[in-house]
Amino acid sequence: MSRFRQDSASVGVVTPQTFAHETPFALRSGVVLPRFDLVYETYGALNAQRNNAVLICHALSGNHHAAGRHSADDAKPGWWEACIGPGKAIDTNRFYVVALNNLGGCHGSTGPCSVNPAGGTYGPDFPTVTVPDWVHSQALLADHLGIERFAAVIGGSLGGMQALQWSIDYPERVRSAVLIASAAKLTAQNIAFNEIARHAITSDPHFRDGRYREQGLNPDVGLALARMIGHVTYLSDYGMGRRFGRDLKSGDLSSGQGVEFQVESYLRYQGQSFSRRFDANTYILMTKALDYFDPAADYGDDLGEALRRVTAEFLVVSFTTDWRFAVQRSQELVHALVRADKRVTGAIIDSEHGHDSFLLPLPRYLDVLGTYMTRLHEEHCGAS
Amino acid sequence: MSRFRQDSASVGVVTPQTFAHETPFALRSGVVLPRFDLVYETYGALNAQRNNAVLICHALSGNHHAAGRHSADDAKPGWWEACIGPGKAIDTNRFYVVALNNLGGCHGSTGPCSVNPAGGTYGPDFPTVTVPDWVHSQALLADHLGIERFAAVIGGSLGGMQALQWSIDYPERVRSAVLIASAAKLTAQNIAFNEIARHAITSDPHFRDGRYREQGLNPDVGLALARMIGHVTYLSDYGMGRRFGRDLKSGDLSSGQGVEFQVESYLRYQGQSFSRRFDANTYILMTKALDYFDPAADYGDDLGEALRRVTAEFLVVSFTTDWRFAVQRSQELVHALVRADKRVTGAIIDSEHGHDSFLLPLPRYLDVLGTYMTRLHEEHCGAS
Repeated sequence: MSRFRQDSASVGVVTPQTFAHETPFALRSGVVLPRFDLVYETYGALNAQRNNAVLICHALSGNHHAAGRHSADDAKPGWWEACIGPGKAIDTNRFYVVALNNLGGCHGSTGPCSVNPAGGTYGPDFPTVTVPDWVHSQALLADHLGIERFAAVIGGSLGGMQALQWSIDYPERVRSAVLIASAAKLTAQNIAFNEIARHAITSDPHFRDGRYREQGLNPDVGLALARMIGHVTYLSDYGMGRRFGRDLKSGDLSSGQGVEFQVESYLRYQGQSFSRRFDANTYILMTKALDYFDPAADYGDDLGEALRRVTAEFLVVSFTTDWRFAVQRSQELVHALVRADKRVTGAIIDSEHGHDSFLLPLPRYLDVLGTYMTRLHEEHCGAS
Repeated sequence: MSRFRQDSASVGVVTPQTFAHETPFALRSGVVLPRFDLVYETYGALNAQRNNAVLICHALSGNHHAAGRHSADDAKPGWWEACIGPGKAIDTNRFYVVALNNLGGCHGSTGPCSVNPAGGTYGPDFPTVTVPDWVHSQALLADHLGIERFAAVIGGSLGGMQALQWSIDYPERVRSAVLIASAAKLTAQNIAFNEIARHAITSDPHFRDGRYREQGLNPDVGLALARMIGHVTYLSDYGMGRRFGRDLKSGDLSSGQGVEFQVESYLRYQGQSFSRRFDANTYILMTKALDYFDPAADYGDDLGEALRRVTAEFLVVSFTTDWRFAVQRSQELVHALVRADKRVTGAIIDSEHGHDSFLLPLPRYLDVLGTYMTRLHEEHCGAS
């Protein structure tokens, strides 16, 4: 058992809000968006000193709905309900928590599904967005909310990449960066899985070069395949073995007649349900942001040099069976931070749940994150 | 350097032959094939005692062309040229080597591309074939060739499963079984990757429930995707990092404009070239044979009980970075064999090349395999 709550304690019913940025926004690519919306939610209250704000950055398929429910009878809470709430590891009695849907997303923020001022919806014409672009847009949201400096910027996976980029691009605005199951850059294998997922989507005949919506179509099959590939790589061999093993849903193994394994039907269900709730162009955009992330590249491939101006302290967490964002990747981050003379806490959590571990209420994980956040609050979020 | 040859020494030009089995053949499923052909090649000569024969069982996408060339100007040798030839680890000066294309294959043996006596080609009507069915058909080929007992049955991956099944089903006909990068059964993760590959093929609109040939179509896109997924899982993260890293083929990472990584273009090429040379129905059939293989299942999930009548000795080889058929799977085989009181040699080879290692001329691997085969020849293949 963790000493932080993992029960039904919740921030309750939350209502998403919209930050409308009505002036031009220049992306790294040189493309300028005339305006954008960011949908966000907040949990807890900003204190008088405005020093208890925490930013939650989402991963590939996440969004602004990180905790609570959208109505009293909403069956499903936010994606990080395990960690965010009163008495939880990210304690909303202490912190003012901000979660948003990133630029390019498909849950309300301006992205491929949004109206293109040039006519129609953006679709495939929505520009490439990079992690630094996200961080830039999140800084504008922080301005809007009156947050000069975050007590912590926190994220898992692609979210951790944003937290790292925050510490590099806005050293004066980040007290602490929490990088969970993340990496300073993707490996070739990781890029390969993303490319296969993109290839599955773009080669679906319903993709129509990304203009599927205009034609009343959706590349369901390709998007489901992309998700199936992703899903397998977010789990561990061991965890899948414990959960499914070689259990059959139907058929006879010895004769090979009518065989369907439980893991097969589970994966197909996961793929199909995802393809109904996520936009294909956004999936492509998000995986590219993942692939292209490489903060050291701007500094002669020297991560230490990229970190030179950083003032934040760090918590770096990884999970033993995560092979998509392996422990080694987090250790590389820890070593680079130590070499750059930064304050860093590293934790490797035993878990059988692979990359998905960062979403789960694992007691030791909650203890590490919650203890860190409690200390952070005590040191930095009181009256000055 | 290995003490076994890995240079251009070759069995030279070889001509495939056909074994036509003209009587009914009952499969495990209960389906009876009225007849079948098996295409095979042989290298080296059967000695007077007929005790120097070696059977090579192929993996998922392999075939009968294991060594040599089909003509003097054939650019590409057989798939296991690294290991089979004069002076090589499987020395054709010593052994009479038989390699075949399995039943259900697409390189000449009876399979989905063959004429269906009921009319047309079999296509998706070709019955499910299991590893025991393959072994049964291979035994008939051995009868045809006058081989009562193999000095060794050898295979990598799915080929190793056949070698194991041989030792169980025909204990009196196998002196030694060589299981390379193999497993006693697939894990849930492995089945999941196979299912995604099958799903990619069957959801290609050109698949037409497997009747693509009749309609002059081919599910190129789905088959290419299936191969891309397979290919990534046959390599290691480390090996891909060494080979491709984050090298770009084009574009600018910082702006995200026109980015293509080397690994992406490599994978797409691999997928496309595979889809031109392999049959989709065969791919589905082969992956199912992999998934369904589970010799212990017939013996109350007790592998030791399955091995009870086995008289063969074993060589079990695995490779450190192989995560599709991990070292642990081979160790499970070794432990089961030891517990069942069989003679077994186990070797774990350091390699950065993942599952594909079993196809490569790695010096330590060649030494282990070649030394084992030399000893086998000395002990069992002389004049009696």
